[in-house]
Amino acid sequence: MLIDNLQYANWSRRIFQQMRDGGVDAVHVTVAYHEDFKACIDQLALWNRRFEDHGDLIMRATSASDVRAARASGRTAIVLGSQTPTPIGDDIGLIEILHQLGLRFMQLSYDNQSLLASGCREEEDTGLTRFGHQAVREMNRVGLVIDMSHSGERSTLETIEHSQRPIAITHANPAGWYPARRNVSDAVLDALMASGGMLGLSLHPRHLKGEADCTLDSFCGMVVDLVDRYGARQIGLGSALCQGQPDSVAGWMRNGKWTKRAEDAGNDEGPPAFPKMPTWFWDNRDFTGIQDGLVGAGLDRAAIDGIMGENWLRFYGSNFGPT
Amino acid sequence: MLIDNLQYANWSRRIFQQMRDGGVDAVHVTVAYHEDFKACIDQLALWNRRFEDHGDLIMRATSASDVRAARASGRTAIVLGSQTPTPIGDDIGLIEILHQLGLRFMQLSYDNQSLLASGCREEEDTGLTRFGHQAVREMNRVGLVIDMSHSGERSTLETIEHSQRPIAITHANPAGWYPARRNVSDAVLDALMASGGMLGLSLHPRHLKGEADCTLDSFCGMVVDLVDRYGARQIGLGSALCQGQPDSVAGWMRNGKWTKRAEDAGNDEGPPAFPKMPTWFWDNRDFTGIQDGLVGAGLDRAAIDGIMGENWLRFYGSNFGPT
Repeated sequence: MLIDNLQYANWSRRIFQQMRDGGVDAVHVTVAYHEDFKACIDQLALWNRRFEDHGDLIMRATSASDVRAARASGRTAIVLGSQTPTPIGDDIGLIEILHQLGLRFMQLSYDNQSLLASGCREEEDTGLTRFGHQAVREMNRVGLVIDMSHSGERSTLETIEHSQRPIAITHANPAGWYPARRNVSDAVLDALMASGGMLGLSLHPRHLKGEADCTLDSFCGMVVDLVDRYGARQIGLGSALCQGQPDSVAGWMRNGKWTKRAEDAGNDEGPPAFPKMPTWFWDNRDFTGIQDGLVGAGLDRAAIDGIMGENWLRFYGSNFGPT
Repeated sequence: MLIDNLQYANWSRRIFQQMRDGGVDAVHVTVAYHEDFKACIDQLALWNRRFEDHGDLIMRATSASDVRAARASGRTAIVLGSQTPTPIGDDIGLIEILHQLGLRFMQLSYDNQSLLASGCREEEDTGLTRFGHQAVREMNRVGLVIDMSHSGERSTLETIEHSQRPIAITHANPAGWYPARRNVSDAVLDALMASGGMLGLSLHPRHLKGEADCTLDSFCGMVVDLVDRYGARQIGLGSALCQGQPDSVAGWMRNGKWTKRAEDAGNDEGPPAFPKMPTWFWDNRDFTGIQDGLVGAGLDRAAIDGIMGENWLRFYGSNFGPT
């Protein structure tokens, strides 16, 4: 089982074919960033069209059994998610509506303050807001997984504490390995692991020690260290692969519609552009290399199988849908 | 099995309890009239709330097996539908989105011309439009049942001809029995029955011979005549019960937002108001009386079971969802 729990590619048949060539059984794709409800619906309708047009390569998945069915039929399961809570606006009822439309992950905030929680680039972290508390309860009820990849530390810790079900950080690495703003502190890692949550390891150069020059050895060494500390059952992949996207999309992801001044977007990453990828990870055909790297780093078979996909599959089975 | 394939009540726990008291296994409810997409979503979210709050009495149903599960658990299955195509606007992609949200019936037009077809109160009937042809194909593909209850005759005949799957007229009676504008001609009945479609018999006084003074005997005599002509397997109930609605809702149903002059709404029904109901049909507890009436009229048990619910259940089983 091979699952990548975050991608936002410039989707095309060529990329879906690469997923098949790489033996990828499931991918969690970002449907929406700063899209409001109707714009998110338009993106979901686009995905329906892709499922219809490329049904020989991909299928819509809303459950672990869908992922198994996709694998059995030689297709890649596509799990849908939003990187912001923008699609729900201020309406708690839209959480169940989006879940009914197949959404299975939603971030409570993305870099900035949201109506629910603070983002990782705000100076002040409010923690979970009043609406945030209710949204967490509702997401727990329907089985829409909370993702705190782009949230502030206090907001993340409060969400882990408040949530009745495990949450996910779908694409980030330990800040102790590489202290990027988007990587996660030991405090968050400890709380996430103690609460049964999942960490998806990012392959985005900005989250890698040495960025594009990060070696596969260094990455695998980080994984071994994580496994030593927390065991191997709550770690998976979340590559954040943005294959084929023009730099304007990096601007959309970062600046949305909230600023006209891209240079002020307030971060440590320079102008909006997709960075060069490490030589050992370019697209969906490169997961075998990572698997080989983990073997070389000395992890046992069960640990590697878990990290490459079994852990996400088990997490989907417990957390997609009502308890 | 007891199924009423159209109601638009002023929903409350009291009415859901009456459904249980009346032994009603499933009701197709109108979610939207003139609501645009987002307003329709808000209505669907309201229904989600009702399913949560009254889950001991009702459950959301999107398949025949859901209806069986509701019956087995002593609850009434609620099937969702729209009386107009207004929620899809001019976007074919919203057909699948609304199907994914549970919509299982949609009318192509309601009294007026729509983007898809003509309504029964227009002077000119265009038949299926260019978009209408594509919408029928898409509704066939996903399994969203076409309902032509409020459409013009030519539009209805062309839709029956063009549709690859049976359609429904969820709430109307034969015009040969009572020539109300909303009742259906022999030409439509012949085509509907020849194509495997379903007719839901209306209990709305404006569709009954003698209106509120219509006798149960007269109604049952009309059913016997239908069974003589077409057999009993494509006939069901679609009461159009609008229990507890204020007259302002009759204005909304008829005038929507397209006219400011209610007196011009162009029909034979007088000012917008809900008419008095016949003495023998007031609410969900009165279906037993109709069943007794059909026994008295001499129909056999299999015919009556079919008409009271088994026919709709079989139709749901074949027509909700992809072929």
